[in-house]
Amino acid sequence: MRRSIATVSISGALEDKMESIARARFDGFEVFENDLIHSALAPRQIGALAADLGLSIDLYQPFRDFDAADDRLFRRNLDRAERKFDLMGELGATMILICSNVSPTAATDDAQIAGQLYELAERAAKRGIRLAYESLAWARHVWDYRHCWNIVRQADHPHLGVCLDSFHILSRGLDPKHIEDIASEKIFFLQLADAPLMTMDVLQWSRHYRCFPGQGGFDLPKFLGHVLAAGYAGPLSLEIFNDVFREAPSRDTTHDAMRSLLWLEEQVKLRAVEGLDVASAIGAAAPEAREADVPADAVVAAPAAARSQATPLAAALGRLELFSPPAPPRIDGTAFVEFAVDDGTEAALGRVFSALGFERAGEHRSKRVTLWRQGDTNLVINNEPGSFASEFFRQHGPSICAIALRTDDGQRAVNRATAFHLPRFEGRVGPHETTIPAVRTVDGSILYFVSPELEARGFWDIDFRLAEPANRAIGLGRVDHIAIAAPIESFDSAVLFQRAALGLEPGDSLELTDPYGMVRSRALSNADRSLRVALNVSQSRSTVIARSVSSMHGAGVHHLAFDCADIFASVAAARGRGLAFLDIPDNYYDDLAARFDIDAAVLDRLRMLRVLYDRDASGGEFLHAYTPMFEGRFFFELVQRIGGYDGYGASNAPVRMAALARDTTSLVTPPRGV
Amino acid sequence: MRRSIATVSISGALEDKMESIARARFDGFEVFENDLIHSALAPRQIGALAADLGLSIDLYQPFRDFDAADDRLFRRNLDRAERKFDLMGELGATMILICSNVSPTAATDDAQIAGQLYELAERAAKRGIRLAYESLAWARHVWDYRHCWNIVRQADHPHLGVCLDSFHILSRGLDPKHIEDIASEKIFFLQLADAPLMTMDVLQWSRHYRCFPGQGGFDLPKFLGHVLAAGYAGPLSLEIFNDVFREAPSRDTTHDAMRSLLWLEEQVKLRAVEGLDVASAIGAAAPEAREADVPADAVVAAPAAARSQATPLAAALGRLELFSPPAPPRIDGTAFVEFAVDDGTEAALGRVFSALGFERAGEHRSKRVTLWRQGDTNLVINNEPGSFASEFFRQHGPSICAIALRTDDGQRAVNRATAFHLPRFEGRVGPHETTIPAVRTVDGSILYFVSPELEARGFWDIDFRLAEPANRAIGLGRVDHIAIAAPIESFDSAVLFQRAALGLEPGDSLELTDPYGMVRSRALSNADRSLRVALNVSQSRSTVIARSVSSMHGAGVHHLAFDCADIFASVAAARGRGLAFLDIPDNYYDDLAARFDIDAAVLDRLRMLRVLYDRDASGGEFLHAYTPMFEGRFFFELVQRIGGYDGYGASNAPVRMAALARDTTSLVTPPRGV
Repeated sequence: MRRSIATVSISGALEDKMESIARARFDGFEVFENDLIHSALAPRQIGALAADLGLSIDLYQPFRDFDAADDRLFRRNLDRAERKFDLMGELGATMILICSNVSPTAATDDAQIAGQLYELAERAAKRGIRLAYESLAWARHVWDYRHCWNIVRQADHPHLGVCLDSFHILSRGLDPKHIEDIASEKIFFLQLADAPLMTMDVLQWSRHYRCFPGQGGFDLPKFLGHVLAAGYAGPLSLEIFNDVFREAPSRDTTHDAMRSLLWLEEQVKLRAVEGLDVASAIGAAAPEAREADVPADAVVAAPAAARSQATPLAAALGRLELFSPPAPPRIDGTAFVEFAVDDGTEAALGRVFSALGFERAGEHRSKRVTLWRQGDTNLVINNEPGSFASEFFRQHGPSICAIALRTDDGQRAVNRATAFHLPRFEGRVGPHETTIPAVRTVDGSILYFVSPELEARGFWDIDFRLAEPANRAIGLGRVDHIAIAAPIESFDSAVLFQRAALGLEPGDSLELTDPYGMVRSRALSNADRSLRVALNVSQSRSTVIARSVSSMHGAGVHHLAFDCADIFASVAAARGRGLAFLDIPDNYYDDLAARFDIDAAVLDRLRMLRVLYDRDASGGEFLHAYTPMFEGRFFFELVQRIGGYDGYGASNAPVRMAALARDTTSLVTPPRGV
Repeated sequence: MRRSIATVSISGALEDKMESIARARFDGFEVFENDLIHSALAPRQIGALAADLGLSIDLYQPFRDFDAADDRLFRRNLDRAERKFDLMGELGATMILICSNVSPTAATDDAQIAGQLYELAERAAKRGIRLAYESLAWARHVWDYRHCWNIVRQADHPHLGVCLDSFHILSRGLDPKHIEDIASEKIFFLQLADAPLMTMDVLQWSRHYRCFPGQGGFDLPKFLGHVLAAGYAGPLSLEIFNDVFREAPSRDTTHDAMRSLLWLEEQVKLRAVEGLDVASAIGAAAPEAREADVPADAVVAAPAAARSQATPLAAALGRLELFSPPAPPRIDGTAFVEFAVDDGTEAALGRVFSALGFERAGEHRSKRVTLWRQGDTNLVINNEPGSFASEFFRQHGPSICAIALRTDDGQRAVNRATAFHLPRFEGRVGPHETTIPAVRTVDGSILYFVSPELEARGFWDIDFRLAEPANRAIGLGRVDHIAIAAPIESFDSAVLFQRAALGLEPGDSLELTDPYGMVRSRALSNADRSLRVALNVSQSRSTVIARSVSSMHGAGVHHLAFDCADIFASVAAARGRGLAFLDIPDNYYDDLAARFDIDAAVLDRLRMLRVLYDRDASGGEFLHAYTPMFEGRFFFELVQRIGGYDGYGASNAPVRMAALARDTTSLVTPPRGV
């Protein structure tokens, strides 16, 4: 299908916006009138630039408050429209968005509105222009899309149709299934926007909080399913008003935008392939569909004809060309985590790993890279000059520069990610060394995809001279979660990337209080929880999270959590090796005693070892402890999950952030008496 | 009255918060429980620190979800409370806030709730602790303060009373007049918060958008009037949850906080002095009261006894000691505006002034300061080494470092401002030179107050060697408005300062779109509009406004607008002298023709001279033109108001910001042929 975006969705001058839109491979765009008015280019020049860039101008928008109870005002509005038709002629645009009226001068009689729209359509027809009439959620009279469609039907003019906007429909809680009742040739245009679910004035919600499909809380796959089932085959167009996108560089935003449409197209198809009834296939159904063991090609190959009798959607999908990426990777946790260091920090980080029970397990055959290992968990320290890691260090200081996931098929995973506009990454590889498929993520770090064959072929042994294992473990297991501090500009971007490229599903947004500002947190995970990512963002520039964001698109991992089976034993062992843990105040433990019934002996151990505690509604328990920060950049967490606890101890985040804010201890000191 | 503030209102660690609270001369504070839990200090240490700082601990808060439908849970909650009573004993706190219940386990029977509160009060009494029961706006059952009071009355225990919170009452639209029905000895505590008027989920509204009295949209003077009329004489305590305050340095926030209470106390008294019925004295009445020619002392001296029969409020005011600052200044516009420059920018700025029709009217007798004059409007260029201006230049580059207002009594104006916690400013003054009363404002710039006597004594002549006037004017009149770019941390602070110290009244908050983000704007003015200040703030770091904010508390004037009687003549004359005006695109003028019926000849002149146009609902007109920026720091505007237009051309702000964003022209070029 054709893909389009409204210029209001992104930042900058009109010509720069158009260039970014073309660069992200959109087919066309909607001209937001103010962008044109504020432009130094004449409409004819803009039309020519669009043609040069290979972009069609799909819509001129918006024309507001057209109909009028008063005839004199109506005549004036017709004149006003004629001026815009002139301009559209210069521009080369053939469709204009007519919003339902929000002014006190609006007509309130449907027949009158239909009549006035008919008269406008007559004039438009003479110019070869079509009118797309849209119901705004906060309009005075026509705020329901069914009402909008009734008026269009009543006016009955070939140059008048409806424009559907997912925000205006879903924000009012209207059921989108009635879209299928609209005559397909009368759906002139489709605008798509997601939004977080909020209870607030709908105009404010619309103007500031819209986001790309997949970033918010609306069920857009279901919505789009109804529109396609109705027979719509025009462009899928994004119209997003978002305060952060208005500020962020348009070159990044347009790639996010495209990614969101691609994700949406795939979602609609996945549901159809699974044979789900669109009307009942709400968000919850999607993960199963995704996790199901469907071969990559099945999605593409699903014989549309065979299903065309099943539902109108399946029939529509048979006719339409939707995005068909390789299936999402099946992820089985983390293969390794790679740290960028320099000469000044390499040894210090090694001491931390050692205190955490990792042993130095190998030296890279051709690079200054060392492997640290505890059980199945691998950490890599990269200090190779001229490498990606050294460039990363230069920009961000000591940081986590790459994460490798264990996947069923690394090549397919990369192909999927690149289909979603992530750039493939190819590092320098020495002779006989292993190439691991990889992409560069939205925050600039690298994501490797390790296939089982690769590990079966013993890729560690190929690249590294492995040492004899010595048992130095303190009981740490796999990586439980990876916490990322995102700059505000790339928080929603990261959510969408994880969701689209990796098939993770996001949880709720949480608000956490740091002593110096609010932090928003949202976790994503796969179905078996072998990969959990917690994204954090801070509007304030003074929080610990904000300080972990070293640059606009910087290296954002601010802590790495390891699972353990007996946290008390592991913490005690690490302490025995000189590892410091964050000093949680006694007041916290006094309060724990008031909040929970906890065995006094357990409480004493928690307090003694500075381990934090949380309990969920069904009795699941979470015990966790934090280290201080390494060079002010990142830290480590030890976690023990008991009884199906599925969160991250959010209620303890504020005490942790307060402790981090005042902490000045160094991570490792030699144990006493050594 | 005693003044207090909740620790949750400000940022940082508990001990730092307490120090800031003491520094701003509060009498006491409310301990927010999480601040205590997260503190490294034991409760006993915090109690000792409070005593050292001379602060009383007025409230421990909050205790949540106390009552319970289920008896077992109720017993558990009693235990939980006992632990908190232990802690309060250590702390030295004798009152605890009990919030109405928001959980699904809440009791819903009033008698049961009253009974449970009675039992808690019995236990509290044994410890010398009192319970202040508060209805949360989003509580499950008890969300109305009258309901809360009914339950307290029903429980009838001397250690149980109500806590009133203006946000919880006003956010639900409840009429505060019934507060006067509550027995005075049963109002245990009062929490004050303002908030902008918004339509959104009340919990989110409360958690993120509360602000100090005078910064939002609630009628707090009226609210407080009812509370005082009810006989309350306890502390006035601020409890503000605000995302910006959570981030801003607590030393600044606490001064704002104190300023807001002082302002509020004065407002309540002013209304009582004016003999207004509190119940009907809504916001609109305040400006008249303030503008009335009441001598400063009348406010203080108003014989309370004489009025004690009039209203319960007047009687209460007779008993209470409220803040009594000198009356607000009567402001008659701007006496001069002072610019900080260095050797590299002094001449260039002079050329701009000259092109704007100002003439070099005098040289300071002892400093490198020059006076520029057009009619009554004076501009001063300060390049004196070692002066305040030179320090200002060092920090902010070329900027407006001081503004002088014409006032009825400069000394009284300064006394009022310092009573509101603004620091007095005393610059270096040469022998025989004039001292002008001044304060340093919240953005670090200087505000002078020039009395009529000073000008009558010819203070320009005393300090300056004046030149012979040569008529170089191009028709510019007085300063129409001063536009300030505030950093987000000090936007509300600036609103409150202008309102409290200067007696200006704020208008609505507007949202304007810059090509690189949203800008919020709020204008304040005095009644005769001789002083208009427009405050602008941008959350985005990429807008023109954001670029004008040179530092956290930086010099924020980003443009200065001059009135003129014939803008076409003035702009043409300035252009003739080589002054550049911002290039507004032709598309704007095409759109003007669609939006308004404008005479074609007028439209042509607007277009030719790049003058912008706006029209208000009653036909008032606004014509205005902008210069490019001076050194990327500030610019000038020429405005002509016709027919009572009272705004600032907000609808043209986006086209101006777009033009500024792409503008690269220099302000003055020598006129051709010269």
